[in-house]
Amino acid sequence: MVESLKENLAGVMAAVLTPLNDDLSPDHGAWIDHCRRLLAQGCNGLAVLGTTSEANSFSVEERLDMLDALAEAGIPGDRLVPGTGCCAIPDTVRLSRKSLEMGAAGVLMLPPFYYKPVSDDGLFAAYSEVIQRIGDSRLKVLLYHIPQNTGVPLSLGLIEMLLKDYPGTVVGIKDSAGDFSNMEAMCGKFPGFRVFSGSDAFLLPVLRAGGAGSITACNNVCADASARVYAEWETPEADGRQARLGAIRETIQAFPLIESLKEIMARSTGHDGWRTLRPPLRPLTAETAKQLADALSSIDFTQDLAA
Amino acid sequence: MVESLKENLAGVMAAVLTPLNDDLSPDHGAWIDHCRRLLAQGCNGLAVLGTTSEANSFSVEERLDMLDALAEAGIPGDRLVPGTGCCAIPDTVRLSRKSLEMGAAGVLMLPPFYYKPVSDDGLFAAYSEVIQRIGDSRLKVLLYHIPQNTGVPLSLGLIEMLLKDYPGTVVGIKDSAGDFSNMEAMCGKFPGFRVFSGSDAFLLPVLRAGGAGSITACNNVCADASARVYAEWETPEADGRQARLGAIRETIQAFPLIESLKEIMARSTGHDGWRTLRPPLRPLTAETAKQLADALSSIDFTQDLAA
Repeated sequence: MVESLKENLAGVMAAVLTPLNDDLSPDHGAWIDHCRRLLAQGCNGLAVLGTTSEANSFSVEERLDMLDALAEAGIPGDRLVPGTGCCAIPDTVRLSRKSLEMGAAGVLMLPPFYYKPVSDDGLFAAYSEVIQRIGDSRLKVLLYHIPQNTGVPLSLGLIEMLLKDYPGTVVGIKDSAGDFSNMEAMCGKFPGFRVFSGSDAFLLPVLRAGGAGSITACNNVCADASARVYAEWETPEADGRQARLGAIRETIQAFPLIESLKEIMARSTGHDGWRTLRPPLRPLTAETAKQLADALSSIDFTQDLAA
Repeated sequence: MVESLKENLAGVMAAVLTPLNDDLSPDHGAWIDHCRRLLAQGCNGLAVLGTTSEANSFSVEERLDMLDALAEAGIPGDRLVPGTGCCAIPDTVRLSRKSLEMGAAGVLMLPPFYYKPVSDDGLFAAYSEVIQRIGDSRLKVLLYHIPQNTGVPLSLGLIEMLLKDYPGTVVGIKDSAGDFSNMEAMCGKFPGFRVFSGSDAFLLPVLRAGGAGSITACNNVCADASARVYAEWETPEADGRQARLGAIRETIQAFPLIESLKEIMARSTGHDGWRTLRPPLRPLTAETAKQLADALSSIDFTQDLAA
């Protein structure tokens, strides 16, 4: 049985892809089916509305409607960690409040990402303003460190400032920068701080370093492989499980990530709409899609999708 | 007499600063006073809601309210070139449509700036989708090239694609990257394309290269100096006028730009509220503010502010 994400914010989460209709609007039905499937495959939580979800390509209203659709479909709120961080503080507050109303286990919060470079004091002021405006003790913030998209890295010094002033509210981080030494440093320096790897490559290493788990794009198509690592990370099977997960990740990461995951979803579900992305992202060309399929068949990937 | 910006999208524009109230909301009254002052100082147009305006730190609703406030105050719509480019296509469409309703001379459109790197095809698809959704022949788009903030440069190849498919709609660019050779290349390659320098340093050079003028942050405090360059650029006075403008810019750019301009506005208007910025930006420290004042006094800057 999967333990409650609210009691223990840890485990394996998918950074949930968003299928689109032809008019580029979110396809709520296919999306909810996908959320249910991910939970069934062993995801402890669903990190909806993040980078992989193309959330910043949706208006705040579109995102609020998506959250409503989840609630209406009966997806348990306490399995959700919605992305809520926007460039504008009022937008971040609005999405975070909505997440709290739904009973979300936490929110994944980008820093404001238009201005750069910005000081740690400026980022602290931004997160403080958001937390104070929300003014709700139920708020659990996972910081979101993804400088390759934001251009705004989150330093150890900033985290220290936030943990000092907002203990119990700022509770962890998703680190998507791909530098394991930073995850290790955070696990060592901030006991109890929940460090999630943004890459499948570091799921077992981060758990061994005292981290909380992973929140990744590939978990859209290999959640079962990640769930096995998480379930068995303290057993002799752990390295083998991680090697299997790592092979899937390594194969996919030779291709454009979000685009490839949508291609895989289209193939596995037979639903062409999965291939649609909102610009500036574009679907894979037929040629690249074929190369991806060939690469995946060489690691006998289909068994994971069917699981 | 200032010619109509709608008939001739050219000249000197301020990237208009946004004064804030204590609660970080836009101070409409002080802002409208500033817009009027800038027009009186010789600005051909007002590039409201851009980078200098902290626009991406405001929600779309806050930005729409600001545009309403301008209309209610009787600021002529045809003197406006509002920033409308957001990460999400529906937001860009909404702000652009509102600008058209107000009779704006043009809009300044950032590319979607969360995902990077993105292909020219992806950026073309994003701009196309926006233009097609707006579906209004009155639309005049100035592209906005500011890779230091967006991480998304706009290539000559992309501009060529856009000019081919959207002639008469994509009409120019604001180039804030600070590389004059790119402005020269655009002026040479795309006759009639309106190239605005995003830096005061290149106002005279871009006019001589066939460009349209400047849209700059410093024009908040030295519009009169820029207007003189623009008025006299084909006279023997031109180099002297540009030297004067360049000295102001050079002095200010040794300090954080938006923060310093707000400090200057606070000093010149006596209104402390000008010192407020929305996080992640922070006001200058008292020490830095003093250094800025000293530096400006050495170039006898006050005469420009009083003009």
